[in-house]
Amino acid sequence: MADGKLKLYGVAASTCTGRVLVTLFEKGVEDFELKVVNVRKGEGKTPEHKSLQPFGLIPVLQDGDLTLFESRAIIRYIANKFEGQGTPIYGATPIERALVEQWLEVEAQNFNGACKDALKYAAASPVDEEKLAQSLEKFGKVLDIYEARLATTQFLAGDFISLADLSHLTTGWKLFDKYKKGSVCFDGRPHVKAWWESISSRPAWKRVLEMI
Amino acid sequence: MADGKLKLYGVAASTCTGRVLVTLFEKGVEDFELKVVNVRKGEGKTPEHKSLQPFGLIPVLQDGDLTLFESRAIIRYIANKFEGQGTPIYGATPIERALVEQWLEVEAQNFNGACKDALKYAAASPVDEEKLAQSLEKFGKVLDIYEARLATTQFLAGDFISLADLSHLTTGWKLFDKYKKGSVCFDGRPHVKAWWESISSRPAWKRVLEMI
Repeated sequence: MADGKLKLYGVAASTCTGRVLVTLFEKGVEDFELKVVNVRKGEGKTPEHKSLQPFGLIPVLQDGDLTLFESRAIIRYIANKFEGQGTPIYGATPIERALVEQWLEVEAQNFNGACKDALKYAAASPVDEEKLAQSLEKFGKVLDIYEARLATTQFLAGDFISLADLSHLTTGWKLFDKYKKGSVCFDGRPHVKAWWESISSRPAWKRVLEMI
Repeated sequence: MADGKLKLYGVAASTCTGRVLVTLFEKGVEDFELKVVNVRKGEGKTPEHKSLQPFGLIPVLQDGDLTLFESRAIIRYIANKFEGQGTPIYGATPIERALVEQWLEVEAQNFNGACKDALKYAAASPVDEEKLAQSLEKFGKVLDIYEARLATTQFLAGDFISLADLSHLTTGWKLFDKYKKGSVCFDGRPHVKAWWESISSRPAWKRVLEMI
């Protein structure tokens, strides 16, 4: 196991695996192996995978003797381990670090759930337009907070891109770009729109898209 | 504002404020002021409070010019700021830190929601026993993972108490101790029971209980 190369178990198209991949690329980490575990095909429930991830989910990172799950724990580990290379994304001062953590939590506790609710309707066929509109309106309440924040700073934690911004890419991309159902969210929220265009044009993110 | 004393906005009986209080006490931080904001009385929705916490929620920590929300971001900040005092609770090595983060995420993503679902039924009057039992069974699936983990280590992240353990106290206490509806969860899960007895007997936690 301890051959020095990071192993990431998951699939690039999964929002949680994608969160880890964009972080690896932003930190300039190339020496890793993606080992495909497709939970939609039931591959998460094998005894082998559950020995790595007891909930049967993805992703899992193995680094030597460390086996780590939960995507937002993995991205923090990568940001710490590769602190000296790639883009600085975890804050340079205690206050910056605190604000990265705050917005990572906002993503996990507020953005993620509301975005995924909207995605559920956006990805359905046929689309229930009324339910989609309702879910987008609810999601918009979260984005109103983002609009106010992003009117004062270029990125969520301050004037520097961070883990907090990157963590939004995979879920946001599915709603805004893959299913193209979120553009109404940008109406009246020019700072959210500019922020989304900025983070989703990162080369690190484009590399993840090539893998999907 | 910058008078050197930490200010914590919230109420001790709130699960998220309690999470911060137990962390402060575990780190030996006494020099803080609790400024009561009772969201149940609508105090979260005042313009004054929303200027600190745009979602209108509690808790909020102010430390000089830093205003920080999201309880799990606040406890990480406290653990970093007071690293040299009180109980070491954020891991002494990169691997320990990673595992603290992993179990903090498991608490936030798995334990918290399932526990609060059960709490909703446990706190109702009269209690819908069937729905309570169903929610406890679902919560038990999460605790099965905890049982397997705690059979190998004394605490969640390893053989040291950490932020990850402390983060469970406020929600767990309401279900297990306040409403006394969770004891069935300990049946067949002796390691979860021993862990719960260990963490809920911490002096830091007893001080929080005295404030509720």
